[in-house]
Amino acid sequence: MPTQTTKLILVRHGQSQWNLENRFTGWWDVDLTELGIAEARAAGHLLAEKGLLPTRAFTSVQTRAIKTLHLALAECDRLWIPETKDWRLNERHYGGLTGLNKQETAEKHGAEQVHIWRRSFDVPPPPLETGGAYDLSADPRYAGIAIPNTESLKLTIERVLPYWQDAIVPVIAAGETVIISAHGNSLRALVKHLSGISDDDITGLEIPTGQPIIYEFDAHMQAGERYYLKDS
Amino acid sequence: MPTQTTKLILVRHGQSQWNLENRFTGWWDVDLTELGIAEARAAGHLLAEKGLLPTRAFTSVQTRAIKTLHLALAECDRLWIPETKDWRLNERHYGGLTGLNKQETAEKHGAEQVHIWRRSFDVPPPPLETGGAYDLSADPRYAGIAIPNTESLKLTIERVLPYWQDAIVPVIAAGETVIISAHGNSLRALVKHLSGISDDDITGLEIPTGQPIIYEFDAHMQAGERYYLKDS
Repeated sequence: MPTQTTKLILVRHGQSQWNLENRFTGWWDVDLTELGIAEARAAGHLLAEKGLLPTRAFTSVQTRAIKTLHLALAECDRLWIPETKDWRLNERHYGGLTGLNKQETAEKHGAEQVHIWRRSFDVPPPPLETGGAYDLSADPRYAGIAIPNTESLKLTIERVLPYWQDAIVPVIAAGETVIISAHGNSLRALVKHLSGISDDDITGLEIPTGQPIIYEFDAHMQAGERYYLKDS
Repeated sequence: MPTQTTKLILVRHGQSQWNLENRFTGWWDVDLTELGIAEARAAGHLLAEKGLLPTRAFTSVQTRAIKTLHLALAECDRLWIPETKDWRLNERHYGGLTGLNKQETAEKHGAEQVHIWRRSFDVPPPPLETGGAYDLSADPRYAGIAIPNTESLKLTIERVLPYWQDAIVPVIAAGETVIISAHGNSLRALVKHLSGISDDDITGLEIPTGQPIIYEFDAHMQAGERYYLKDS
C-alpha cells in the first residue's frame, strides 16, 4: 500500500481595512478591503486549480478570517463542508496598541519600543484600557470567555496550540483535508510548532495574506516541510 | 419570574438563478442572483434593526442557502456564531424535472400533470435519470448518503422533521436563538409541523424569499403563531 499523506491548508486572511491603514488590529473586528476580498477569492481559485479541496474548515471568530474562509470555499465549491469557529484561532491581542497607527506609535514611544512590542517573543504590549474604545468585554462573541487584555506571541501560542492539539489534530489524523483560515500570529503559532522554529526566529517570519501554505502529514502525524501551494 | 420565550428565525434563500429562469431546481446547486444577494442582506439588516440576533445557525448543504445565511449574518454582525449544515434541510428533490423550465414542462406534460407534481402532497415527480446531466451521485457533498432520486413533499417532510427533532429542538430548548436558512419545501415541512397545517393546505402555502419568519416557543417548547419579522 502506498503511504498516504494528509494535507493541511493554512490561509492568512486577506488585507483588512486596518492592514491598509497600518493600525494595530489584534482582536478588534475589522472587515476585509476590496483587495482582501480578491486575495481570498484567489486563494480559493488556487485550491480549485490545484485540486486541493478541503473537507473540514476551522477559523477564528473574527470577521476577516471567517469571510476569507467563505470567499475561498465558495470559489472552490466547498461552502458545504463543516466549519468550526473558535476564539483560540484569533489574532494576537495587541492590548493598548489596538487601534493605534504603527507610525504614530513609533513616533510617540520610539521605534525601538514598538519593535520590542511587535517582534519580541514574550513581551506583551501594555494592557488594553478597560472601558476604552476598543474594550471587548461587552462583545457577545466573547461571553463566558476570560478574554486577555494583551498578549505576547508566547501567550498567543499558549492558547493556539492546545486547541490545535485537541480539536484539529484528531480531524487530520482521521484523514480529513483541513483548511485553517486565521491570522498572522495564530498561524505563526502553528508554523513554529510544525516547522520547529525557534523563539527568536519565529517573530521575524512573515505569513503572507491569502497565500495557502501546505503541510503534509504522514500516518504518524509527522509534518513534512511546509510549502506554498502556488509553488507546487 | 416572567415567562421566557425563545425565538426561532426561518429564512428562505434569496432568488437563485433558476428561480429567475423559472426552472425546477431541487437539489441542483444553483447560485444566488444579484437580487438574491440583496434579499439576503436585507434579511440580516432587518434582524439587526429589530434586535433579533441569532446565536446558532442551521442550513442545508446547498450554496444558495449557505450564502443567504452568511450574507444575513454578516449584515447583523453574527458571522461568528456556530453554524451547522445538513443535507436534510435541502430543498425537495425534483427528480426528473430538475433543470426543466416550468413553462416548457407544462407544454410537454400538460399543465394539470405539472400541477400534480408541484402541488400534490405525496406524488413524487418521475425519478432523475441516472448518469444524466443532473445526476448527483458523484457529488462529494453527498458521499455516504443514500440520496433520493425524487421526492414528494411528504418524503421531504420525512427527512426534515427527524433532523428538526434531533438536532435543532434541543438547541432551542437550551435557550439559543436559532436561525434556519433553507428552502421553500424544507421550510414548508417545518411550518406544517409547527403551525399544524393540513396535508392539503401546506402544498399551497408560499414561503417568500429572504423574509424572516418567526416562531416563539414557551418553556414547554410549544410554538406560538408564526409571524413575519417585518410586521412585528
